[in-house]
Amino acid sequence: MVLRYLTAKLAQQIDEELMSSAGAFSIDQLMELAGLACAQTLAKVYDKEKYPKVLVCCGPGNQGGDGLVAARHLGMFGYRPTIYMPKPGSKDIYQRLKTQCDNMKIQTLPPSNETTDLADALASNDVILDAIFGFSFKGPIRAPFDNVLPMLTKSSLPIVSVDIPSGWDVEKGNIDGVGLQPDVLVSLTAPKEGVRAFTGRHFLGGRFIPKAMEEKFELNLPQYPGVDQIVELPQTQKL
Amino acid sequence: MVLRYLTAKLAQQIDEELMSSAGAFSIDQLMELAGLACAQTLAKVYDKEKYPKVLVCCGPGNQGGDGLVAARHLGMFGYRPTIYMPKPGSKDIYQRLKTQCDNMKIQTLPPSNETTDLADALASNDVILDAIFGFSFKGPIRAPFDNVLPMLTKSSLPIVSVDIPSGWDVEKGNIDGVGLQPDVLVSLTAPKEGVRAFTGRHFLGGRFIPKAMEEKFELNLPQYPGVDQIVELPQTQKL
Repeated sequence: MVLRYLTAKLAQQIDEELMSSAGAFSIDQLMELAGLACAQTLAKVYDKEKYPKVLVCCGPGNQGGDGLVAARHLGMFGYRPTIYMPKPGSKDIYQRLKTQCDNMKIQTLPPSNETTDLADALASNDVILDAIFGFSFKGPIRAPFDNVLPMLTKSSLPIVSVDIPSGWDVEKGNIDGVGLQPDVLVSLTAPKEGVRAFTGRHFLGGRFIPKAMEEKFELNLPQYPGVDQIVELPQTQKL
Repeated sequence: MVLRYLTAKLAQQIDEELMSSAGAFSIDQLMELAGLACAQTLAKVYDKEKYPKVLVCCGPGNQGGDGLVAARHLGMFGYRPTIYMPKPGSKDIYQRLKTQCDNMKIQTLPPSNETTDLADALASNDVILDAIFGFSFKGPIRAPFDNVLPMLTKSSLPIVSVDIPSGWDVEKGNIDGVGLQPDVLVSLTAPKEGVRAFTGRHFLGGRFIPKAMEEKFELNLPQYPGVDQIVELPQTQKL
């Protein structure tokens, strides 16, 4: 019984089924649990005493929403998150999640195309949470992200990526070589085909898949420990 | 700096402010985190090996919604929850939360006024999660709950109550003597005036109050440990 890696299409299908009238989940619920799992992963690997300052990089889609939820929980856990949204999302839920962070006095970098603010932020943060692109990403990488990703890489800060490292093809991985090289990955619901070759620490989050759905899609999920929202997967050996 | 106990009115005000356009939380988010806190509390005190079967008793309001979320998470944690809703809620969110439990094949007792099913369930469960009445409860206790509460009490099963033990006045406590006598209480956001004299193990959940709001309402909340959604409060001495 081997853990299944998802195609982009299957990931999409699972997401839609969870939020269908049969699945009955709201996006608010799923994002809350996904974002909490991301925050717990970062906290598991990067202690807040040594890595208090987290730059949470959010894309404009649902992945960015997960990032905003994670930023809030990181703030609750005692980290000092800063939000960077090169291109803020327009959905209502995205804006509500952003307001929740504002209410916690979590700083946000100006969303300009000027990269000076980002450079300054990279110089003063301890770790990056990469919630830029998710399983619906299709290349090529467009502005302003074509400038942003190389800057994140050059910072040499440790990176925790959500679901798929930003810039990687969801199914083929870092084929263009322009994607981030995260130290830690948190896959949501199940890992995607593109991360098979990922050799860093790999966690799974999204503890909300009913058993029947897991069986229908033959996901073969591992057992989560205790009351945790995440489970660590065995590391892939470097070739 | 002493932890503040809330009047019913203040609890209501905090709830409304969290969900106002300024607070920006959806009820889905708050219930998800509240229900998760309830499930974590039960799991902290009642080990799933010794207490696998949990009877989750849900009222018709938001408190019942918290109970349904808790039932789902308990199922995820490996418990075997059964839902009892003497009077199912009619709100859309309540029904979606119920469907999510159905999808996990969590059993539900028939919502009849016949108490035979409840009696059978009490004989075969290990612990009760009481999510019947919350901070908006106003006595007297009406049917069918006037029959249900004494049966829960007589079962002698350990009880974990959410926010306010069912049957207690939110501000004056168990004045009529007809309320449940839980072993464990999980207060949400802040404890209510009525539970000052509660002497069992007391946890706090609802790790979503922004600092500014905590200060505005002078809540003086304790620090939550690590990534937990709950914190245990010092036990009140028995008089």
